[in-house]
This record gives sequence, C-alpha cells and structure tokens, in this order.
Amino acid sequence: MDHALRLAARGLGNVWPNPAVGCVILDAGGLVAGRGWTQPGGRPHAEVRALSQAGERARGGIAFVTLEPCAHHGKTPPCAEALIAAGVAHVVTAMTDPDPRVAGRGHDMLRSAGIRVTEGVRGTEAARLNRGFVRRVTQGLPLVTLKLAASLDGRIATASGQSQWITGPEARRAVHALRLSHDAVLVGGGTARADLPRLDVRGLGTMRQPVRAVLSSGPLPVLPQTGAPFWHLHGAADPTADGAKGVVISTAEGRLDIDAALRALAERGITRVLCEGGGTLAAALIHAGRIDDLVLHSAGMILGGDGAAAIGPMSLDALSGAPRFRLIGTRRLGPDLEQTWTAA
Amino acid sequence: MDHALRLAARGLGNVWPNPAVGCVILDAGGLVAGRGWTQPGGRPHAEVRALSQAGERARGGIAFVTLEPCAHHGKTPPCAEALIAAGVAHVVTAMTDPDPRVAGRGHDMLRSAGIRVTEGVRGTEAARLNRGFVRRVTQGLPLVTLKLAASLDGRIATASGQSQWITGPEARRAVHALRLSHDAVLVGGGTARADLPRLDVRGLGTMRQPVRAVLSSGPLPVLPQTGAPFWHLHGAADPTADGAKGVVISTAEGRLDIDAALRALAERGITRVLCEGGGTLAAALIHAGRIDDLVLHSAGMILGGDGAAAIGPMSLDALSGAPRFRLIGTRRLGPDLEQTWTAA
Ligand SMILES: NC(=O)c1ccc[n+]([C@@H]2O[C@H](COP(=O)([O-])OP(=O)(O)OC[C@H]3O[C@@H](n4cnc5c(N)ncnc54)[C@H](OP(=O)(O)O)[C@@H]3O)[C@@H](O)[C@H]2O)c1
Ligand SMILES: NC(=O)c1ccc[n+]([C@@H]2O[C@H](COP(=O)([O-])OP(=O)(O)OC[C@H]3O[C@@H](n4cnc5c(N)ncnc54)[C@H](OP(=O)(O)O)[C@@H]3O)[C@@H](O)[C@H]2O)c1
Repeated sequence: MDHALRLAARGLGNVWPNPAVGCVILDAGGLVAGRGWTQPGGRPHAEVRALSQAGERARGGIAFVTLEPCAHHGKTPPCAEALIAAGVAHVVTAMTDPDPRVAGRGHDMLRSAGIRVTEGVRGTEAARLNRGFVRRVTQGLPLVTLKLAASLDGRIATASGQSQWITGPEARRAVHALRLSHDAVLVGGGTARADLPRLDVRGLGTMRQPVRAVLSSGPLPVLPQTGAPFWHLHGAADPTADGAKGVVISTAEGRLDIDAALRALAERGITRVLCEGGGTLAAALIHAGRIDDLVLHSAGMILGGDGAAAIGPMSLDALSGAPRFRLIGTRRLGPDLEQTWTAA
Repeated sequence: MDHALRLAARGLGNVWPNPAVGCVILDAGGLVAGRGWTQPGGRPHAEVRALSQAGERARGGIAFVTLEPCAHHGKTPPCAEALIAAGVAHVVTAMTDPDPRVAGRGHDMLRSAGIRVTEGVRGTEAARLNRGFVRRVTQGLPLVTLKLAASLDGRIATASGQSQWITGPEARRAVHALRLSHDAVLVGGGTARADLPRLDVRGLGTMRQPVRAVLSSGPLPVLPQTGAPFWHLHGAADPTADGAKGVVISTAEGRLDIDAALRALAERGITRVLCEGGGTLAAALIHAGRIDDLVLHSAGMILGGDGAAAIGPMSLDALSGAPRFRLIGTRRLGPDLEQTWTAA
C-alpha cells in the first residue's frame, strides 16, 4: 500500500475533478505484476492501468488500491467490474470513496463477486493524500495551501519596496513543484495588478498546468499567456471582462466572499488550491479559517518592521483568537528553510 | 577531545571573564583518570580539576584540553606548570589561547619541559565554543545572541497588544537554558519599563545568574530582586539612579551607542550576551551588525500585519543591504519550532 500511495501522489494536481489514486497488483506468487496511477485529466483510472499491465497475471492475485474502486458507470466502466473480470482474488483498499455515487458500493460489488476485501489499510495516509477530493465531495470546498516566502521577521519586501528575490533558486523550484501538485493557483487582485505573475509550472517536464484564479472585484490586467486557464473570481459580472482576461466567475450574490469564491472553484471540479498571496488575500483566507496547510519559506535575512508584511491586518484582540497551526516538518532549500504547518 | 568539549560547554555563561575550558586526562594505559571544567566564576581551571582527580595516574598520561593551558601567574599558578609537575607525557589542545598573556606561551612552556604537544584538534568546534572569549580578548566586544519569540508572521503581540504567551512552556524553558549559557541578558529601556522582567534563570538548579543589562537613556524602574546584578547602560550619568536600579555604566562620550554599550560590557568581563528584545533594540543591534546568533522560537499561529512586529524599523532600501544569516539547525520545542541562524 505504501507503494500504491507513492504512485497515487504523482497524480495530485493533474487529475481534478477526479481523485488521485494509486494501484499495485501482485500476482498469485506475490510478485509485482502491474502498477498504475490516475492519469492527467483523471482518466484512465489507476486500476485500469495496473490491470492492463498485469494482464493474465492478475488472476488469483492481490490488488492494493489507495481508494475504494468506483462502482458507477461514468465516462469509463466501473473499476470494481474490471477487477472482477480480471479474476483478482483479494482487493486491499486504504479508504472508502466519499463520492455518494460510490460510498461503499465498490466494496460491496467486489464482495458480491466473491472477492476477499480488506479495507482501511494505511487509512490515515490515504485520508491525508485525498484531503482535497474528500473536501470537495463532502463540503463543496477545495483544500487550500498557503505558500509564503518571507524574511525571518515575516517581511516580503524592504521599506523601499524591493522584494526580488528573497528566497533562492531551490525554494523557487520547490514552489513550482507545489504548483504541480495543486489544481489551481490563486492570488488576489493586488498581486495580479502589481506583478502580472505567470503562475505556471516551469522546469518540471510536461504536465497539466494549474488553473490561474484571481480574486478581485476590480479590473484585471491581461496576464502573460502560458496556456493555462485564467479564471477571474468576481463578485459580479465584470464590465471590463474579455477573453484574454479569462473566464469571469461571479460568486454568490454579487459579494466578494472567501467561501463563495472557494465554492465556485470546487463546483468547477477544483480539489486543491495553492494561494500565493498577497498579504491581504492571505489574511482574509486565514481569518476565514480556510487555510489547511501553510508552507513557509524563510530566508536568512531581516528586513525590519518597516518592510512589507507577509500577512495583512487581522484585527485580532486576544491571542486565544489567533488561528493555530501544527508543525508537520522542516527541510532546507539551499540557504532557505521550508516549514510546513497544518491547521490545528 | 569531544568529551572535553562537552565538559567545557558546561561552563558557558558561568565562568566570565574567563574562558570555558574542558579537560580529560587519560592514564598511561589509556583509561580516563580525570575530568574537569572551568568552575563557576572562572576558577579552579579545568586542568587543575582534572589533575587533582587523576592524582598519580596522570604521570605518563595524555591530557586533552579545549584551550591552550595558561602560562601566566594570575590568581592561580599557570596550568602549564601544573601539567608539567604532574608528569603528563602528552598534551593535546584544540586551539591557542588568544589572550596576549598566553598566546602560544603555554604550548612553549610544555614543549620546553619535554612534553609532546599536539595542537588544533577539533579546532573548529573549539573556536565556536570560545567565540565570546575570543571576541572579548581580540576585539573588546562580546558575542551577542538575539532571541526572538514570534508568530509565523513575525509578530510578538496581537493588534490589541496581547502577547502572553505566544510560545509554550518547552520554549520558555529553553530560554532559561539560553540565559544559563550567557554571561549577561540585555534588554532595551522599552522592555524594562513595559514588562519589569526578572531575566533570571529558573528551574535549572543553582548556578551563577547572568548580569541583567538594560540599555536606556531614560529613567528605569526598579526591576524585581533576583540576586543578579543590574547594570544600567546609559549615555551619561543618570540623575535618577540609585542602588536599587543597579550600577550605572556611562558609555562613550555620553551617547547611547550600540558599540559603546557592548564595549562597556566586554570591559567588565562579559563574553556572551543574550539580547531578549524589544524590537527597537533588536533592530539597532542587527543594523549595527552586532548579532552573531539568532535563536527564533516560532509559534504555530498567525497574528496579522497589525500585530506588534518582532523587529523594529530598519529603513532598508535594497535587499542586498539586508543583514544575512545562515541556518545552523532546527528543533521542536513542544508545539513551537526553534530555528538557530548565525550571521553570514
Ligand atoms: N514575495 C512574495 O512572496 C509575494 C507574493 C505575492 C504577492 N506579493 C506582493 O504583494 C503585493 C500585493 O498584495 P496585496 O495584499 O496588496 O494584494 P492581494 O492580497 O494580492 O490582493 C488583495 C485584493 O484581493 C481581492 N480580494 C478579494 N476578496 C477579498 C477578501 N475577502 N478580502 C480581501 N481581499 C479580497 C481584492 O481585490 P480588488 O481590490 O481587485 O477587489 C483585494 O484588493 C504586491 O506588491 C505583490 O508583489 C509578494
Ligand atoms: N514577546 C517577546 O518576545 C518580547 C520580548 C521583549 C520585549 N517585548 C515587548 O516589546 C516592547 C518593548 O519594545 P520596544 O521596541 O518598545 O523597546 P526596547 O527595544 O525594549 O527598548 C528600546 C529602547 O532601548 C534604548 N536604546 C538604547 N540604545 C538604542 C539604540 N541604539 N537604538 C534604539 N534604542 C536604543 C532606548 O531606550 P530609552 O528610550 O530608555 O532611551 C529605546 O527607547 C514591550 O511591549 C515588550 O513587552 C516582547
């Protein structure tokens, strides 16, 4: 299952609106006969890839799948049917699919066909891997990761406004890997106007580019052409909108509201969002309790209290009201320190 | 020598104006016969302790000493003489003593007596350990460690001013251990007036308390009585000074100047200073390039850009002018993350 989980992770950011699944098939002799993971765009599914690799060797074997195999006829026939047809003797899964169209029916279908089923193996790891998909299916919201790059005193620019580059090339490369594992990259209107950011994945081979989403009630500039979709999350129809500025998505009731904006993304299939700032949008997301993971790239420099703050004002009174995070881990990125924290 | 270095470290903060030295003596058969480290207040020296433990077993043995043995008659007879008298066959040292009264004379004295001498073993580690002593003897300045406790966005209080407690008990205990390994604790007048801090070492057994130093041109309140000395670093004679407010130390030319204040501490024998804030003093020290190590305790919370900044304004223009630090390491302190950076 560990192997299957590692395969599954390859799909993160590339398979929305589908979940990123991994599958490993052992033949009756216990040797690896097939491996698969959800392919870019969400199809073929992991089981189909692994079964086609295993061929006849799947018969009497064991399939390890990170998520319950699907049971419904969607754009492809159900994977549970494919596993039955292949003659697999035992299916081990990490978690039940929360999608109401599956929700236990995949497991039932396998058992009815006389296949032995073991559930919940490495369930915690699978739940963490599938957080975005589960969030979208059960709550209509995406998982949100906030990435910040700041000095040791939490600044993103000097008093005079210089900000490039605070972190080094290793940290910037890690940001491209982060984008790669998310379905959409989100910035505020302030950042879109100030930086005209590309927000694409570079230097990591061919892959599906994340959707570029900008939250703004104002007019937006034309962002650099990268081939990635550009969605303008807007409180109302934007009179200045045109094709080059992307699809205008009007969020609920004409108000620019964090939850409405995130729901609009989930409705369109987005399961994992990477917010890259700026400080105003980050503060609004944190204040709304909508940040799941915080990836902080700390550069070994001090910019001083008159530098630009990484996070905007939050009008906090008591410390007890401060949003809390739990440390997941740290690693060095060249001269910089990456800290990963998760909402507590 | 690793063993001797670990013994030496026990003296840090307790032996000023002397260096913290460690000594391990092996008998002729290679067994540990004696161990010693500089005792609180700087005497007895490490070699004297180790030799008295070893007794006759020192004869024909090897002495590992983290610093060149002293050669001058100070308040105690020279350690080089004691090693000669004990009949040690071989002395291994980690570095030369930069004190002009020693500076190679200890090694010479041993060699003249026919003792084999090996120098520079674990020299890098010893140099790091002795940084404060070397700085004082060679430059007339102490080593300065800056300790900061802040939220992930570099804040020490909420917008409304609440600041206790940002970090947890494990981090606060680590601060007491930091104080223990420094000769003096330094704060700015703002912190002294706002917090009436104790600045003492608690919960770690009996030891020498660090000197409390406050840098301020204004009147100071009476700090809580802890038994530790209280030094008021002041630009001029303080008309409001009295005994309870400590010794008033007038720094150069009546100006309140960072270097003059640090020199005043070094002149009085201080080799290692721990600055605990506030933000104004921290910014001044960083700007003056006088921070050697930065110990940052990051709490897993976000307080927002309207919270109080950990570091005061620095009027920086270009990023290239920002003071830089190199990551030494991280560790978890309960829910908090300790980061140690050193001036690059
Ligand atoms: N160094 C870095 O890592 C980094 C990263 C990103 C950005 N930056 C810098 O940050 C600066 C921009 O940051 P910023 O804080 O001014 O702007 P921002 O956070 O990028 O955008 C703020 C804008 O987002 C929109 N918004 C939508 N919903 C909101 C809500 N509920 N609450 C608040 N805002 C909402 C509003 O857009 P409208 O005003 O359009 O309605 C608001 O003005 C730029 O200078 C950029 O270079 C630095
Ligand atoms: N959470 C924490 O970890 C923590 C730690 C420490 C402090 N704090 C908080 O920080 C606040 C105090 O910080 P602060 O920034 O106002 O004051 P501060 O840094 O403690 O003290 C500033 C004062 O230091 C003196 N000073 C001497 N030489 C100086 C120089 N070259 N440059 C600048 N100042 C020099 C001046 O004293 P005079 O004005 O007397 O001349 C100046 O006003 C308090 O609210 C305290 O609770 C929090």
